[in-house]
This record gives sequence, structure tokens and C-alpha cells, in this order.
Amino acid sequence: MTYDGTDFSGWARQPGLRTVCGVLEQALSTVFREPVELTVAGRTDAGVHAAGQVAHMDLTAPLDDPSRLVRRFARFLPPDVRIKAIATVPAEFDARFSAIRRHYEYRISTAKYGVEPLRARDTVSVPKDLDLDAMRRASAGLLGLHDFAAFCRRRDGATTVRELQRFDWVRDGDIVTAHVSADAFCWSMVRSLVGAMLAVGEGRRSVEWTVGLLEERERSSSVLVAPAHGLSLVRVDYPADEDLAERNAVTREVRAVPGGCCGD
Amino acid sequence: MTYDGTDFSGWARQPGLRTVCGVLEQALSTVFREPVELTVAGRTDAGVHAAGQVAHMDLTAPLDDPSRLVRRFARFLPPDVRIKAIATVPAEFDARFSAIRRHYEYRISTAKYGVEPLRARDTVSVPKDLDLDAMRRASAGLLGLHDFAAFCRRRDGATTVRELQRFDWVRDGDIVTAHVSADAFCWSMVRSLVGAMLAVGEGRRSVEWTVGLLEERERSSSVLVAPAHGLSLVRVDYPADEDLAERNAVTREVRAVPGGCCGD
Repeated sequence: MTYDGTDFSGWARQPGLRTVCGVLEQALSTVFREPVELTVAGRTDAGVHAAGQVAHMDLTAPLDDPSRLVRRFARFLPPDVRIKAIATVPAEFDARFSAIRRHYEYRISTAKYGVEPLRARDTVSVPKDLDLDAMRRASAGLLGLHDFAAFCRRRDGATTVRELQRFDWVRDGDIVTAHVSADAFCWSMVRSLVGAMLAVGEGRRSVEWTVGLLEERERSSSVLVAPAHGLSLVRVDYPADEDLAERNAVTREVRAVPGGCCGD
Repeated sequence: MTYDGTDFSGWARQPGLRTVCGVLEQALSTVFREPVELTVAGRTDAGVHAAGQVAHMDLTAPLDDPSRLVRRFARFLPPDVRIKAIATVPAEFDARFSAIRRHYEYRISTAKYGVEPLRARDTVSVPKDLDLDAMRRASAGLLGLHDFAAFCRRRDGATTVRELQRFDWVRDGDIVTAHVSADAFCWSMVRSLVGAMLAVGEGRRSVEWTVGLLEERERSSSVLVAPAHGLSLVRVDYPADEDLAERNAVTREVRAVPGGCCGD
């Protein structure tokens, strides 16, 4: 799926609020004429966007003609959420627990005039001369398997040990984009990582400070959470079909927690 | 300037309507503490966007510190319009009559699922397999100095002879973008050119049909005007300072018309 998170209260179902999951489940239930429940790869926060979100559901009847269904949902759904593709998957496939990697992007405009109006919904204005070299060094220092507790909002029982696999910064004119990939993310982790790097890029913090955060065992109040609307979930990776069952067993053991609205 | 045309009734001042010119003149008059009137390069229609619009104004006092002014307007203006740069120009500079070339882009999504929600404001959904080769051949056949009357909405006294300097199509995944450049455009010309090429791309019309339109001397009802929101004015070219006066004399003679809300 792809959505503009601006007018949604995040992914997760919440009574009385317009959420991506709520809007999709209602449309899917109507079209398939049975109650549908979605399990999602990344439970994005309010205001966060997605270009490549993945969810699965169980249906009693087999799917017929997925591309016709895609066109039908294009007419049926509101314009701020789109189903890009529908496919039948093996019974072992779980959009959340089978995922091996999540890729996020965070979009910043450093222009003195602010943000291009047509990109105001997914771009954060930081009208400063960011020291990208320092941000790149600091980001590289966080790569690998670490306890990212300093960057995570509290959720009882959830591990904060994650493998950060990519964290780099690309400049294109006034636009600076962070590419952030990990096996999974805890709640607010990407936005906290970006917030910490902005502190380095603006010269308020040192590269050593960010590496030192990896020693902390709980959320650090010195790390600012960057605004939600710069963030997009761009892709989720899955293993080959024959490796699904094994992957599910591993991730369920490590990450299964009751409830929880956000993260992954 | 750059603006998201979605919530504007076009560029030109209109009593009681929110227009780009109206919003800018009000902000500029307030900041400069004198009545300001803007002359613009391209009087865009309702719903049309701009990434590189240019306007000039006359001020009684000299400009001080343009980059500070840009930051000030970023806080002062609504988020759907931004002044990217401010500069003092020679007295001969006229944003409209000095311009030697206008560059437009038209953005289409051919995805079966519709348009990426975050680009729904500036992208038109044409969920079809467009024949880009045919569209390119038809577009190339329109290049050069011609009477584009078949593609122009009527405006008394205005010439419809224009030099189309670039008209090509670029595909990037599901996105097809038209690049259209000319010395100037008459009213609705870019959208009519795009509409005619879509008829070719969908197989409804032939390449010969589009070339034949150049023989017509008035607007052709067979040419559909493509939706406004796919169109953006991306750049305006001006001559070197020493050639301004000469350019102004040429364009004023050819194009000066009383009133007129749109085009160029």
C-alpha cells in the first residue's frame, strides 16, 4: 500500500479516529463481503507516510483477478490511500513476522525559503547549513546490532535490540534525504535517529555523543524526535517462500509483545 | 516563486477569490509598507502549479539583504506559496516581456492503482498503456514556429503564433512526464497539447491528425484540454542584462493585448 499520512491518526485501529488500517479494513470487508483483519509490516505513527507498506489478511474464498481488484480499490478508496498490488501468498506468510528488513526515508529541505509547497506534506524544513559529513560519520557509527533503547519510546516487554543496516544521507540540491534500514524498528526509533543526527549536523552535538547513546539503557531525553511528516516507509523485504516458516519462528520469539500500537 | 495551485483560483487578481497574485501582493505590500503590483512571466490558470515562476515589481526604496527577506517571507506567507529568491534587476527588466522561453512539465501516472497519494495534487491518473513512441512522434511533428490556434482558447487580438522549442515525453516507472518549452504560450495551449498527445497515446487519434491541427485557424473542439493539476511552470529564461531592452521591444510589439487573465 501507499498512503499520505497527513490526515490519518496513524496505521493502527483506534475507535472514533480515522486510521489507515480502519479505512482499508472497511473497504476490504465491503468488497470481499466478509470481515477482514489486516496484519501490517510497519505500524506507522500519526502523520507518517508509506510508499511500500505491506499487510496480509485471511480470506475464506480464493482471490480472483488481482489486477482487476487493484483497479476496483482505486475507485473505492479515498485518494490518500492506494492498494498498489494484491497477491495470494503461502499460508506461512506473515506481513509482520516474516519481514526481514524495513526501509524508511526521511525528507528534509534546507532551503532558506522553506519547503516546495507541493512537497510540504512529506518534507520538513530545516533552513540551515547542515554539516552532512559529520552526520554521515555519526550515522555510520550507529550501524550494526545494538541496544537502541536511547532512541526508543517505552513499550513494556519489547526488545530495543535492533540491527541497523543502512543509515546514510543523500543531498540533491536543497533536499537532504536520510535512508534508514533495519531488521525492525522500535517505536519512534527512525525519527529519534534523525533528530540526533540533526543535532550533529547543526553543530549542537558531537559524533562521540551519538555513539555514547548506544550505552544507555533507556530513552534519552537529550534526543529530540524529528517531526512525523518527513518520514515514509518505502519498502519491506521478505525471504523466499521456502524460508518463511523459519523466519517467523525467529522473529516471534524475539519480538512478540501483547498489544502495542506502533513500531516495527 | 513556487506554489501549489490546488487552493488558488489561478495567478491573476480576481475580486473575492484567493489568487496567487493577490496573496503575494498583500504580503509584499505589508512587508515593504507600500502598495506593490506584480507583473508575472506566466499567468497560470486555476489549479496549475509553479516551481519557477518569476514576477517583477517597482519599489521606491532600494532592497536591503534579499536573503533575509526570503527567510522573512517564508514565515509570513501561507505554506502553499514560497518566494525562492529576491533580487534587484535593471530598470529594463520585465518579467513578462523580457522572457525568452517558458518551460512547463505535465505529470501523469499510468499506474493501474491510480496516483501515489503524496503526489495526487500534481499528478493526473491515466491508468492505461500509453503508446509513448507514437506520442513522441506526434509531439516532434509540432515543434517549430506555427499558428497554434487549434490549441488556444480565444483571447481577442492575441496572436496564436508560437515557437514550440521542446515537446518530449520521459517515462520513469509508472510516471510519464511531458516537457514543453516555447517562447510563450497562448491560453490553455500546454494542456491542449497534452490532451491531443494523450488521444494519440491511447490510440484514439493518429500522428497525422495532430500535424493536421496546425492548419486550423481557430480552436479545435476535437482537442481535449488535459486537467489543470498535472501542469507546473518549472522555469522561465531571460536574456543577459544588456539585451533586455531589445527583447522587450520585440515581444511588446507581437503580444501586447489589453487585459487577459491567462496564458504566456
